[in-house]
Amino acid sequence: MIAETRFVQFESISLDSGASLAPADVAYQTYGELNPGRSNAILIEHAFSGDAHAAGISVETGKPGWWDSMIGPGKAFDTDKYFVICSNVLGGCRGTTGPSSINPASGKPYAMAFPVITIADMVRLQKMLIGHLGIRRLLSVSGGSMGGMQVLEWAVSYPEMIASAIPIASTARHSAQQIAFNEVGRQAIMADPDWNEGNYYDGKPPARGLAVARMVGHITYMSDESMRHKFGRRLRGKDSFGFDFSAEFEVESYLRYRGSQFVDRFDANSYLYITKAMDYFDLTNGQKSLAAALERATARFLVISFTSDWLYPSYQSQNMVNALRSRNRDVAYCELPSNYGHDAFLVEVGEQTELVRGFLASTYQREQAA
Amino acid sequence: MIAETRFVQFESISLDSGASLAPADVAYQTYGELNPGRSNAILIEHAFSGDAHAAGISVETGKPGWWDSMIGPGKAFDTDKYFVICSNVLGGCRGTTGPSSINPASGKPYAMAFPVITIADMVRLQKMLIGHLGIRRLLSVSGGSMGGMQVLEWAVSYPEMIASAIPIASTARHSAQQIAFNEVGRQAIMADPDWNEGNYYDGKPPARGLAVARMVGHITYMSDESMRHKFGRRLRGKDSFGFDFSAEFEVESYLRYRGSQFVDRFDANSYLYITKAMDYFDLTNGQKSLAAALERATARFLVISFTSDWLYPSYQSQNMVNALRSRNRDVAYCELPSNYGHDAFLVEVGEQTELVRGFLASTYQREQAA
Repeated sequence: MIAETRFVQFESISLDSGASLAPADVAYQTYGELNPGRSNAILIEHAFSGDAHAAGISVETGKPGWWDSMIGPGKAFDTDKYFVICSNVLGGCRGTTGPSSINPASGKPYAMAFPVITIADMVRLQKMLIGHLGIRRLLSVSGGSMGGMQVLEWAVSYPEMIASAIPIASTARHSAQQIAFNEVGRQAIMADPDWNEGNYYDGKPPARGLAVARMVGHITYMSDESMRHKFGRRLRGKDSFGFDFSAEFEVESYLRYRGSQFVDRFDANSYLYITKAMDYFDLTNGQKSLAAALERATARFLVISFTSDWLYPSYQSQNMVNALRSRNRDVAYCELPSNYGHDAFLVEVGEQTELVRGFLASTYQREQAA
Repeated sequence: MIAETRFVQFESISLDSGASLAPADVAYQTYGELNPGRSNAILIEHAFSGDAHAAGISVETGKPGWWDSMIGPGKAFDTDKYFVICSNVLGGCRGTTGPSSINPASGKPYAMAFPVITIADMVRLQKMLIGHLGIRRLLSVSGGSMGGMQVLEWAVSYPEMIASAIPIASTARHSAQQIAFNEVGRQAIMADPDWNEGNYYDGKPPARGLAVARMVGHITYMSDESMRHKFGRRLRGKDSFGFDFSAEFEVESYLRYRGSQFVDRFDANSYLYITKAMDYFDLTNGQKSLAAALERATARFLVISFTSDWLYPSYQSQNMVNALRSRNRDVAYCELPSNYGHDAFLVEVGEQTELVRGFLASTYQREQAA
């Protein structure tokens, strides 16, 4: 399956902060065909460092999409049956307007003049994209991690526009620990002199700070057990300690590699803005309770979490489920066994496929019958 | 109880790396009185960022020691009964020889010319201190976290010199995840241009990198639950989001404060060397198994861990206990309930006091009867 990124420009978008952006570009990909009734569209939401290239082989890079194991002909999100859409989030750096985009007011990149955005702002822009594609109601919205936050936001902001919601390894509100890890990443970037208050687009980016931020991230995406299996205490290409500060342990070498690799594909200012949006995310803002917040949601829910995920632990998914059930909503919850930690939503394809496939099929049947 | 730091200088010390240091200074404090039989001495081992000031009020700073809740008249380590010793570790920056000490060869601070050290090196220097104090056998050696690693090293390196061992919230080998968190801290420091390959003693220290490293550390010392209780999603001095990158959440403000505070009391190069020593720590190095490694230990053991400690999880303590039991050693194990995460060994005084008090009393009785 070949995947190509397309672009659409909207005149402007109003933001939760009171600011607005004009214009607002969206990079997106689609897979499969929209049926004549326009009733088979599914929106996929990417996680923090993802992009619009969710599936297939990119014509630009030749690489498979970040959820290619789940999206395609005969896969969980079966492109023989469904029309699947994925767009880069607002604030991102992969085609959708973000801090590295040109600020029409100055003719230079926004940098820190970019307004602080929220998960609801990201979703508002996606709604404009869905309208542009001529779709009135989505069969489903699904995504893991920050993708799951966008799913929840869709469910309460535009309940009439979605038939079902599949938040995976996610939360209805960022916890103190989750905010703390994001803040460490931000501070690592802002501590790098090359960050230069965000004005580095003419020179070299804050590569060292961004790499450190990414290293922290990678630890939180794995589990104690998956790191033991993958690296243990193995030394890199030698049998005994070197008594120096080179990357001796395989885990050190891996983290340094992933850190430096990330610098080539991600914008440090996007790191700041997107993590901030995640930290602001709390469905209960301005509501009495999570149950009260979710009362607006009318979609069917399939909520999935993973046993070894300590970054977005199962109790956070269970909080959503309890809130939805307390309002008598249609919700199925599955905690899947996995040793992969938070990465499980990208890795554990088998059981997720079974769950998602059945859930989508029954949702489609109900929609046709309604 | 007034506490005063004393110093002793040894001519030289040989290190695991093959290098040696000459001279080697040790900063230490003592509390209580050594009895005529010299049979009531207890060595306390500090954790990563600790120092010799474990108890009492410092004559230098007016501040209580880092384990003052556990050491003193009538406390767990009862200074009415026992003679308690604590020294700053080799590689440290609080009086014992470390990378910030003057290198006699150059007349300038060692910086990165300081040799890489191990937990066994730290313990070897402590053995010299104990000899200097005229003590042949310690009633007990105790400490939490990295302190517990030193306890284990004592137990296998100098089994005839200790009657009992109390490793708390610790491990017999650093795991991939533990190495990974330390590596992130080291990379944050080394990414700071002010680190300057370790040569910053004439100028300004790598304060930003060290602060980021410490922020990561603080997250790992707490638990998800303790952070929720302590900070939750509370904003600092306001009711609504500011839509900027100031420290809005209390947890952000706390981490930034703790990070910057740490810079005033800790040397960045000591951070590198001490974390490296922890990462090298593996009692099974050169042994068939942990049980084989611990076969040399003859001390009685009291092993303590805490339910919410995810940095040094209980399974690591249980591995020690299983290994000791498999060699028929005298070992008691208690997993204490706590929400405080790894910090619990510093905070949960009540139950630890009961356990330690009884264990020390029975050890003392046995020693007198032997």
